[in-house]
Amino acid sequence: MTGVVVRTRKRAAAADMAALAELGVSTTHEAMGRTGLMKPYMRPIFSGTQIAGGAVTVLAQPGDNWMIHVAIEQVMPGDVLVVACTSDNTDGMFGDLLATSLKARGGAGLVIDAGVRDVRVLTQMGFPVWSRAISAKGTVKASLGSVNVPVVCAGVLVNPGDVIVADDDGVVVVPRLDAAKVLAAGKARIANEDEKRRRLAAGELGLDMYNMREPLAKAGLVYRDEE
Amino acid sequence: MTGVVVRTRKRAAAADMAALAELGVSTTHEAMGRTGLMKPYMRPIFSGTQIAGGAVTVLAQPGDNWMIHVAIEQVMPGDVLVVACTSDNTDGMFGDLLATSLKARGGAGLVIDAGVRDVRVLTQMGFPVWSRAISAKGTVKASLGSVNVPVVCAGVLVNPGDVIVADDDGVVVVPRLDAAKVLAAGKARIANEDEKRRRLAAGELGLDMYNMREPLAKAGLVYRDEE
Amino acid sequence: MTGVVVRTRKRAAAADMAALAELGVSTTHEAMGRTGLMKPYMRPIFSGTQIAGGAVTVLAQPGDNWMIHVAIEQVMPGDVLVVACTSDNTDGMFGDLLATSLKARGGAGLVIDAGVRDVRVLTQMGFPVWSRAISAKGTVKASLGSVNVPVVCAGVLVNPGDVIVADDDGVVVVPRLDAAKVLAAGKARIANEDEKRRRLAAGELGLDMYNMREPLAKAGLVYRDEE
Amino acid sequence: MTGVVVRTRKRAAAADMAALAELGVSTTHEAMGRTGLMKPYMRPIFSGTQIAGGAVTVLAQPGDNWMIHVAIEQVMPGDVLVVACTSDNTDGMFGDLLATSLKARGGAGLVIDAGVRDVRVLTQMGFPVWSRAISAKGTVKASLGSVNVPVVCAGVLVNPGDVIVADDDGVVVVPRLDAAKVLAAGKARIANEDEKRRRLAAGELGLDMYNMREPLAKAGLVYRDEE
Amino acid sequence: MTGVVVRTRKRAAAADMAALAELGVSTTHEAMGRTGLMKPYMRPIFSGTQIAGGAVTVLAQPGDNWMIHVAIEQVMPGDVLVVACTSDNTDGMFGDLLATSLKARGGAGLVIDAGVRDVRVLTQMGFPVWSRAISAKGTVKASLGSVNVPVVCAGVLVNPGDVIVADDDGVVVVPRLDAAKVLAAGKARIANEDEKRRRLAAGELGLDMYNMREPLAKAGLVYRDEE
Amino acid sequence: MTGVVVRTRKRAAAADMAALAELGVSTTHEAMGRTGLMKPYMRPIFSGTQIAGGAVTVLAQPGDNWMIHVAIEQVMPGDVLVVACTSDNTDGMFGDLLATSLKARGGAGLVIDAGVRDVRVLTQMGFPVWSRAISAKGTVKASLGSVNVPVVCAGVLVNPGDVIVADDDGVVVVPRLDAAKVLAAGKARIANEDEKRRRLAAGELGLDMYNMREPLAKAGLVYRDEE
Repeated sequence: MTGVVVRTRKRAAAADMAALAELGVSTTHEAMGRTGLMKPYMRPIFSGTQIAGGAVTVLAQPGDNWMIHVAIEQVMPGDVLVVACTSDNTDGMFGDLLATSLKARGGAGLVIDAGVRDVRVLTQMGFPVWSRAISAKGTVKASLGSVNVPVVCAGVLVNPGDVIVADDDGVVVVPRLDAAKVLAAGKARIANEDEKRRRLAAGELGLDMYNMREPLAKAGLVYRDEE
Repeated sequence: MTGVVVRTRKRAAAADMAALAELGVSTTHEAMGRTGLMKPYMRPIFSGTQIAGGAVTVLAQPGDNWMIHVAIEQVMPGDVLVVACTSDNTDGMFGDLLATSLKARGGAGLVIDAGVRDVRVLTQMGFPVWSRAISAKGTVKASLGSVNVPVVCAGVLVNPGDVIVADDDGVVVVPRLDAAKVLAAGKARIANEDEKRRRLAAGELGLDMYNMREPLAKAGLVYRDEE
Repeated sequence: MTGVVVRTRKRAAAADMAALAELGVSTTHEAMGRTGLMKPYMRPIFSGTQIAGGAVTVLAQPGDNWMIHVAIEQVMPGDVLVVACTSDNTDGMFGDLLATSLKARGGAGLVIDAGVRDVRVLTQMGFPVWSRAISAKGTVKASLGSVNVPVVCAGVLVNPGDVIVADDDGVVVVPRLDAAKVLAAGKARIANEDEKRRRLAAGELGLDMYNMREPLAKAGLVYRDEE
Repeated sequence: MTGVVVRTRKRAAAADMAALAELGVSTTHEAMGRTGLMKPYMRPIFSGTQIAGGAVTVLAQPGDNWMIHVAIEQVMPGDVLVVACTSDNTDGMFGDLLATSLKARGGAGLVIDAGVRDVRVLTQMGFPVWSRAISAKGTVKASLGSVNVPVVCAGVLVNPGDVIVADDDGVVVVPRLDAAKVLAAGKARIANEDEKRRRLAAGELGLDMYNMREPLAKAGLVYRDEE
Repeated sequence: MTGVVVRTRKRAAAADMAALAELGVSTTHEAMGRTGLMKPYMRPIFSGTQIAGGAVTVLAQPGDNWMIHVAIEQVMPGDVLVVACTSDNTDGMFGDLLATSLKARGGAGLVIDAGVRDVRVLTQMGFPVWSRAISAKGTVKASLGSVNVPVVCAGVLVNPGDVIVADDDGVVVVPRLDAAKVLAAGKARIANEDEKRRRLAAGELGLDMYNMREPLAKAGLVYRDEE
Repeated sequence: MTGVVVRTRKRAAAADMAALAELGVSTTHEAMGRTGLMKPYMRPIFSGTQIAGGAVTVLAQPGDNWMIHVAIEQVMPGDVLVVACTSDNTDGMFGDLLATSLKARGGAGLVIDAGVRDVRVLTQMGFPVWSRAISAKGTVKASLGSVNVPVVCAGVLVNPGDVIVADDDGVVVVPRLDAAKVLAAGKARIANEDEKRRRLAAGELGLDMYNMREPLAKAGLVYRDEE
């Protein structure tokens, strides 16, 4: 199953992806019924970015970034490169040269369950990366993996063309065909939240706003005064 | 022992807490005889803040933030919410809505042995948080924990009303009744340090300033020249 | 083998070290044949710094910073203090007083396989530190270690006088006698990279620029269209 | 997507599963092109067992074992229960009562990306378990998850009905429709290995048996005598 | 607060402690309302032992076992030595000489949030140990800690004289004054479990025995057939 | 520096190595002044073995066991194969075929800072292995490393020909030229321990036997009675 590159052109609608980027990761994750979130060890190399794009997936061998070179040819403008590794690895598989190439192809960012390097230059370029580690450790180009096959990245299944949403809260994966539905659910949630935020800011308690007092009492919550 | 909310009003003197915030975590920890420090995995979501306040404690179930809603009602201006979890968990139990509510109640910050989310908004709000992780993972509201009971948070016992001091170096817990004594010890230490800093900056060696040469020799330290 | 301080004066040429600092960690590591890199848990306390200097090595006991005081006397201008620990430890062995002293001696930075504290002040001082952890945990001054003996720090052998290069990508150790050779190899690599960067930015694929298509095909890589 | 139980009856052929159990995890994993292996933190609670069976999958909330009770009704003789968790958790979700029930339904074993307890009794019962942790930590029964939906367990996608092969080397997942093909590849490999083992035991070198000397030399391997 | 040895003689009733040992950790932990359990990294060095005894607590410095020598004098027959460390440490603070001494004083076992060594001899002696690590790393005897003060060990507060229950599932701490009450609750639970075990073994489902079907349906659980 | 095989024949005296095996790891480590111990994550795959032998070192790439095949040719009877990896990796680089070959060459055991597989067969063969992990994950044979160069394995520098001592307490490395001296120191220590063991077993306290009461009092230790 390794050694395969799938040429694939299916993506979610660009407008839906842009709107998901605006919703952000936490809202999108809630809108998906709290699924699809990568493990929290995936962190941005610099903060303040929110992106969404179609996944070009890479399955790489530990310490070997050959398939990233292969994958870049498959990138369409707006895509996010998603690199999974066949075993846990923190080597710096991606640096400023690959970022230059990926950016030239229109790539919107990188999500990698391994390490990255040249982070100062990547930050200066404003090229968004979410990774497991920062490491200067160089890699070989010796063994095949695959491109655009389903991969498990940081605990989540990613199919090529799925929508990757990433910001300071982490990375969430929206199945391509669910994008519009998730977006609608997320927007409803947001609308809802503005009103809540206003009431909470005015001093109303969540206990009252969410009508939690009765279920808490039913569950057996007891109030006591300090002795 | 779960399912209890203790209404408690005892806090250390506000002036003492403000002075401890200024001393900072490392000095306070030294002034306590090197005790009371939470494990170093507790990190601020943004740097540069130094706070101190009375602890409102929460014991939560993993993946369940119901009791945080309950706890906010117990917060008095200047308090710090301290959330412990019955088992290790990184879920995003706290986000911008809860921060809005906690801030509206006068809460000074959050210390949570689990995850937080909406960190970009929390940063924009300037709401100080020390946490084990950043994670968009949503939580349920299904199981009781307790509020204002003694908890172990990141390796340290916290009683409700204890003084929480937190800055870029971490989080330290001062027992409420020890606050004045610790403050005095801390101030003495600081006074002491200014003089030391001046002498060290002028090139004096710690070896001489602290009179270490004799005890080192007694302990058997040997100087050799490179061969 | 503990309880020894070696007075040593051998360093690489200052100009070579300055040039290695400019090359940076990732390039230097590649120029060394991908060796010498410390484990990626070694992170700077603030970003944007690139340094290189001769190693003054310290072998410390866990929770004991006595030997750091001893080591500072051995520091020559431009040196980097490298602290290894006899077992894994995150205690805050180094803070602003030690930094003041180390800076007064001309020390260029600290690399420590343990914790540091007073990070806000260290950042204001602009004193560069790479560490395993940030922790306010205080240390004792009770047991001997050694200064300027070979140590293993974060997975790499460091001999006194070796060149330490550190930046946002991590920390790499260049054996003193290899400094000039590594510098030459690194410079060749950099020259090479500028041309590559230009071609990649212009849209040329790494696949073509590096002539990877043939070896990939030979290795058995197969292209398929999406079904 | 949570709150769903899928009643499913598709399994691989029992004889194929039995044969895969005999091949064991390492051979099966190789026969699959080195894919499908769960992360190595999945360890048996006692050694010496080799099993294979059809997966009944569970997606559970952290600290909540309600869905395991639901799942047991869906177990057919020979099945392996596979429990994934929506976030990392080590709580003891499964103990001797659940094992008694699962065994009564014909369940062949448990693979759980969380904790188990009552391990002494489970060992006495000879009930095979692979888990992330051993923990007495009790769980609630408060929130829905799902049964027999695709899950990611310890880094691998598991579809209901996939073949789970587990032994002292870990746990590997064979897609249901690939079982026969993988079995054939594994048998070929085994046949092959017996001959190799005999030759190696007789002192022949792998270097010669696998004809590695030429490719090593081509890759640039150099032999030197000790100075 | 360090440098103190408290001579203390209060223990729970020996019969209650013996009965808690028989209940075991998981049942005791449930009987306490799911509290008091140490983190699951605490593992026995050999399996099959179930003990309970009164805690003699030690607060040690990392890499320093001086206070263990001090503590052994305070041990009464049947006591369990509980060693906490002021920061995370895996050094081998305890070996066969200390075990010989502790056993001679009637000590029932050791619970240590650090490392142990001489594990082969300890196993031959049948001396029960629960630890964070096995490590030959030697320790110094240089800095004071305390004996019989409250400590946090592996995430749980332990007061001197508390009942320590430990078996293959881990370690749980029962406050001294709660021992009889917890024992009663545990016994009720066990009685209850025998009947449940019989019914489950006979094929009855937990879903029915625990009347879960209605609450599951209310919570929204949906059954579907495979497509 | 990679791509080199050094043919080397220097070993410590066989009798010294045999005697070090009998001393065991903890005593040897103490006899070396508490240096040379590998990190405690190195664990035996089965317990009860004590070995010592000359190191044949391997520097491998992550996920690539090519150099192990190369190294076996360099093994002399009684040698221990020591495998380090250029970055952290848990893949199963060594299994029963390699063990068969290594055993046929007279190899005494394996120490590997990565994973092993076929552990059931290795256990049946009685072939001693200390590793970082157990994992079925297969490896490629694609990239060069080196054989018999100095390596850092699990935190310790190993030179080819150094004496590797390993038992249930871990793995310690004795520099080849120090073997006789370390052995002498270890034997003195053992002789010493037998007498101590007898006295401790008879109830004498370490406090008295080691004359600790006075230094403890000088350090400020205070005894108090429970209030």
